[in-house]
Amino acid sequence: MKNFKKITLNENEMPTKWYNIMADMPNKPLPPLHPATKEPITPEDLLPLFPMELIKQEAATDRFIDIPEEVLELYKTYRPSPVFRASALEKAIGTSCKIYYKYEGLSYAGSHKANTAIPQAYYNKMEGVKKLTTETGAGQWGSALSFACQYFGIDLEVFMVKISYEQKPYRKMMMNTYNASVIPSPSNLTEAGQQILNQDPDSPGSLGIAISEAVERAAKNPDVKYSLGSVLNHVLMHQTIIGEEALLQMEKAGDYPDIIVGCFGGGSNFSGISFPFIRENILNGKNTRMVAIEPASCPKLTRGKFMYDFGDSVGLTPLLAMYTLGHNFVPAKIHAGGLRYHGAGVLVSQLLKDGLIEAQSKYQKECFDNGVLFARTEAIIPAPEANYAITGAIDEAKKADKEGTPKTILFNLSGHGHFDLMAYDKYFSGELVDHELADAEINASLAKIS
Amino acid sequence: MKNFKKITLNENEMPTKWYNIMADMPNKPLPPLHPATKEPITPEDLLPLFPMELIKQEAATDRFIDIPEEVLELYKTYRPSPVFRASALEKAIGTSCKIYYKYEGLSYAGSHKANTAIPQAYYNKMEGVKKLTTETGAGQWGSALSFACQYFGIDLEVFMVKISYEQKPYRKMMMNTYNASVIPSPSNLTEAGQQILNQDPDSPGSLGIAISEAVERAAKNPDVKYSLGSVLNHVLMHQTIIGEEALLQMEKAGDYPDIIVGCFGGGSNFSGISFPFIRENILNGKNTRMVAIEPASCPKLTRGKFMYDFGDSVGLTPLLAMYTLGHNFVPAKIHAGGLRYHGAGVLVSQLLKDGLIEAQSKYQKECFDNGVLFARTEAIIPAPEANYAITGAIDEAKKADKEGTPKTILFNLSGHGHFDLMAYDKYFSGELVDHELADAEINASLAKIS
Repeated sequence: MKNFKKITLNENEMPTKWYNIMADMPNKPLPPLHPATKEPITPEDLLPLFPMELIKQEAATDRFIDIPEEVLELYKTYRPSPVFRASALEKAIGTSCKIYYKYEGLSYAGSHKANTAIPQAYYNKMEGVKKLTTETGAGQWGSALSFACQYFGIDLEVFMVKISYEQKPYRKMMMNTYNASVIPSPSNLTEAGQQILNQDPDSPGSLGIAISEAVERAAKNPDVKYSLGSVLNHVLMHQTIIGEEALLQMEKAGDYPDIIVGCFGGGSNFSGISFPFIRENILNGKNTRMVAIEPASCPKLTRGKFMYDFGDSVGLTPLLAMYTLGHNFVPAKIHAGGLRYHGAGVLVSQLLKDGLIEAQSKYQKECFDNGVLFARTEAIIPAPEANYAITGAIDEAKKADKEGTPKTILFNLSGHGHFDLMAYDKYFSGELVDHELADAEINASLAKIS
Repeated sequence: MKNFKKITLNENEMPTKWYNIMADMPNKPLPPLHPATKEPITPEDLLPLFPMELIKQEAATDRFIDIPEEVLELYKTYRPSPVFRASALEKAIGTSCKIYYKYEGLSYAGSHKANTAIPQAYYNKMEGVKKLTTETGAGQWGSALSFACQYFGIDLEVFMVKISYEQKPYRKMMMNTYNASVIPSPSNLTEAGQQILNQDPDSPGSLGIAISEAVERAAKNPDVKYSLGSVLNHVLMHQTIIGEEALLQMEKAGDYPDIIVGCFGGGSNFSGISFPFIRENILNGKNTRMVAIEPASCPKLTRGKFMYDFGDSVGLTPLLAMYTLGHNFVPAKIHAGGLRYHGAGVLVSQLLKDGLIEAQSKYQKECFDNGVLFARTEAIIPAPEANYAITGAIDEAKKADKEGTPKTILFNLSGHGHFDLMAYDKYFSGELVDHELADAEINASLAKIS
């Protein structure tokens, strides 16, 4: 095995197909249901929200789907992304494990979200769409889509979760620079937003609420479509470029991961890195553990319930069969805004139910401890979301050391923290707190699901 | 010629030597003079400030200097950096020219400054230094050195120009995350700072003032050395890794630049991209024009005087033979903080005097116009400093189109603007102004030089 620091791929080695895990799942996910009729939705039901090509991808069963030329061209502005050996971090924690990370923070918007923003904007453009709406939590998704829309000549309106809008003003400015308009959510622009504000004028917002607002705007306007940055099958599939590259890079390094770790909000970066390796487990007898890390304050995978629930807070989306804390659940104001979502994508939920992936939860403060250690050893200041993946990787390494069986660990560093330095500032000044979540609160939220 | 979007190098193609232009200059630069005796300084004079290895590099005449293994190792966390063909920008401005850019914003601190921060911290560590002081303008240099010092186990104290400290709070937080302490300059910690504050309690600071403070701290404390992010010969030499890579990349693209453009503060990023190409002009009969772009509000190259002057505001550094506006010159508060410096490096000054490079000045607002256009086409939001290089490249392209002789242009995109979004916000709200600088003001400043 060569002792690389950075394992790169050339432009011409970049994979040209996305992987569709639907083809290889032992149990296919349950179908989405129409919110009114409770019958499986049809492609026509989704047409007010999405272009037909994405609707087809949502239900596709082909194992691989070609990435369009125009999308590959834009991918090449920041892809293939590097895999690093975390040698300085390994030394700092004194582990015998090998820790690698795939770094998605080199994209123009600083995270993996560009991987699906680009094809979504592209397919909308191909079907003549002139305006999109979307939601964003920490702002990673919103800024990724802002440039993609600008590039393809589409207007964009972003509903940004209010707490993130206040914590991360630079993200808003970034979206403006890319020519998008940004609205703090909940807002008075939609009935959904008004409904929330009537209940709680000081609502910090949530991804679920922001989704309701964006979906409502698209549903009510035939000239506007909607775009989602996580959860849905086609979104998760677009992210598999991460894992497909990582497979090639691990081969170049002459190594293979025993454990893959990703942080978990709706599932997109975790799926991106893990799905191609799950395929290797299923088809090629590999035996890699896939570990999703969620915040202890928003623990749908470890403490939620597998059931049909809405993807948004108000109940405008189809019902999805997923692990959920209830669509009314408003998570505590942790700084990992991208992980503050009540449910998990349908594909990931089914995989967890079937034991093909695992989940763990971590507290905010230990994640920042590890994020700072990572910055001071590996040089990259991670996004607060990515600190959960770092913590998962470090904890697995320590466990393996304790057991005397060193492992090879690969985690996804989904984005940098250049826009999240206020959170680091609060960490250093001792203002970050951990949020204990009582069973009663989860049960009360789940009980509200009709 | 292949139609690449991104031209990359593999880790093993990365150059392993810096280029020392001193070896090939037709006229060698004049020696630095001791501030008290006005005699050429000796290596011993510099020992309170710098480790011996950097003092040797400052006066070295070898054409190439080996990059130490440990430095190469850290370079590999973000190098080789890509060269992009700016095809979307070309299309937007409708030029027949080919525009390429070398992108240095992928380093951990978001700019080219890491290229010299790493070797400077390394050589200090090798000579047992435990603490460094430095100055920073926009914060690019301070954050690059913060991580490098942390990595090599050196404490760091950063004097940050006050106007930038206020405009760019995230840069301070970034340095703190890398474990450095940051002081707004002018401060009361030094006699130099007190002297400035006595004259003007509201002084916005300048790089010259911050250098005075950092130099004073090192000069008065035998356990502390000083580190500078631009101007000096060894700093400019460390940056030549940029141009050495770019030479290989242009060859891969099957192309060669007619014009090279870089923004200009003290000279480090401009020298980094241009020096290796100047060597090709001198030794191999190439005929590339090298164009330095400075702000119209700080025009030492285009309106300054070639003479001996201090590198700092108070007069603690050696006297350097350079183009200068006078060491007391306090530039207008433009957002390109890294370009607010009164003088130009000795090497670059001599090259300009001898006609081996050219200089132009640009106004702030047109630079932001072009920076926004660049972000909306090429996806990367540039640092305000880099907007000057973009403007230089676009203006040269338009000129060539007008003359009917399309050129190949390569510019250095020295860093991203993730920490400078407040400046973009001001641009969009119409708050950015251009600063007209009267001859009388420059003459008055120059008259103060004794």
